[in-house]
Amino acid sequence: MRDSYREQLDDILADLVEMSQVVSSAVRSSTTALLEADIHLAEQVISDDEKLDHKQSEVEARAFSLLARQAPVAGELRTLVATLRMVTELERMGDLAAHVAKIARLRYPEIAVPDSLRPNFVRMGDVAEKMVVTAGQTLNDRNIQNAQELRARDEEMDELRRTQFRLLLSDEWNFGVEAAVDVALLGRYYERIADHAASMARRIIYIVTGDFPEDAYWPQP
Amino acid sequence: MRDSYREQLDDILADLVEMSQVVSSAVRSSTTALLEADIHLAEQVISDDEKLDHKQSEVEARAFSLLARQAPVAGELRTLVATLRMVTELERMGDLAAHVAKIARLRYPEIAVPDSLRPNFVRMGDVAEKMVVTAGQTLNDRNIQNAQELRARDEEMDELRRTQFRLLLSDEWNFGVEAAVDVALLGRYYERIADHAASMARRIIYIVTGDFPEDAYWPQP
Repeated sequence: MRDSYREQLDDILADLVEMSQVVSSAVRSSTTALLEADIHLAEQVISDDEKLDHKQSEVEARAFSLLARQAPVAGELRTLVATLRMVTELERMGDLAAHVAKIARLRYPEIAVPDSLRPNFVRMGDVAEKMVVTAGQTLNDRNIQNAQELRARDEEMDELRRTQFRLLLSDEWNFGVEAAVDVALLGRYYERIADHAASMARRIIYIVTGDFPEDAYWPQP
Repeated sequence: MRDSYREQLDDILADLVEMSQVVSSAVRSSTTALLEADIHLAEQVISDDEKLDHKQSEVEARAFSLLARQAPVAGELRTLVATLRMVTELERMGDLAAHVAKIARLRYPEIAVPDSLRPNFVRMGDVAEKMVVTAGQTLNDRNIQNAQELRARDEEMDELRRTQFRLLLSDEWNFGVEAAVDVALLGRYYERIADHAASMARRIIYIVTGDFPEDAYWPQP
């Protein structure tokens, strides 16, 4: 019976790893949809997000039922509670990727991002995607050393966003108000994806070590 | 012992109600700081947010310890799990109020919001604040009828944001790119506060009835 409990918990964790793969792929596709004005890809990200919402409900129900069925011991309880939170964060990251895709769809057949900010968004999309991949891998192998690399990536994300603001508010900005509003919101969405990935990593460190990292870098859950 | 368990759970719920009062007050103050360019009030919202972060950690630790100490029965388990989530949402709403205050501080002594959008932001601030108040009251009295009124307010919030976008992207927008970026992000912050309040209400309905509302309106947790 104990084994079966542990197996069910492992199944839930495997589902979270799988969800992180779906999310990282949604982040990549939404960035492509944005930068290539690919309407079909945008639509796909938006409709796939619903599947992610259903998956979240399903995983939550299983985690909750496992929590209710048998009083878990300390480490398992910690894992289950972290699970309930990580599934919410994954669902939010999926929403944010869908928000990016919705801006791509709104501006189609135009490209929402001006040429001068293209390299910035290529990098933002890449950093966000890799952070989700790293969070998923860390959950899969419980090697919290990997989680540490999220810090450098998160700092790069902040710097990318500062670069955006500098350009948006400089005299060189010739792309008007609509593009500025799009860029500001898109930057916010990518930044939030990065925040959620970092927060997920923090929870994994908590599962593995029993403590939240003390380091001031790690965001509050 | 059962009584004491129930009392501790009630204490946690009372703390959430108190946190919701702190958050609604932070939302009100950040709106005033924004619209009056009140730098002292802005600083206060920003520093009070740290207290809210500490309160979150403290309430989480108690909820977790209660969860670990004694296997709770179904209704209590449901409440405890909902508690762990509501405390995260309250902390996020506090962050978002601090984000509003930070834009107020950034533009001081100027006012970030152009005159023509002032009534819109007065209303947004008011709707967001009242939604947090209603969520807190609903948690306090477990009268889920009140939660229903959040729907009308949330719809008003969406309409206020659409009005902002219409104005931002119209030919009448003469306030430049910086103000447009500020308004777009501010609108997003208020909208997210409203989303979290609605999500909290959803969790309270779940605590009281044992089911999430089926209605398509209610956002996913």
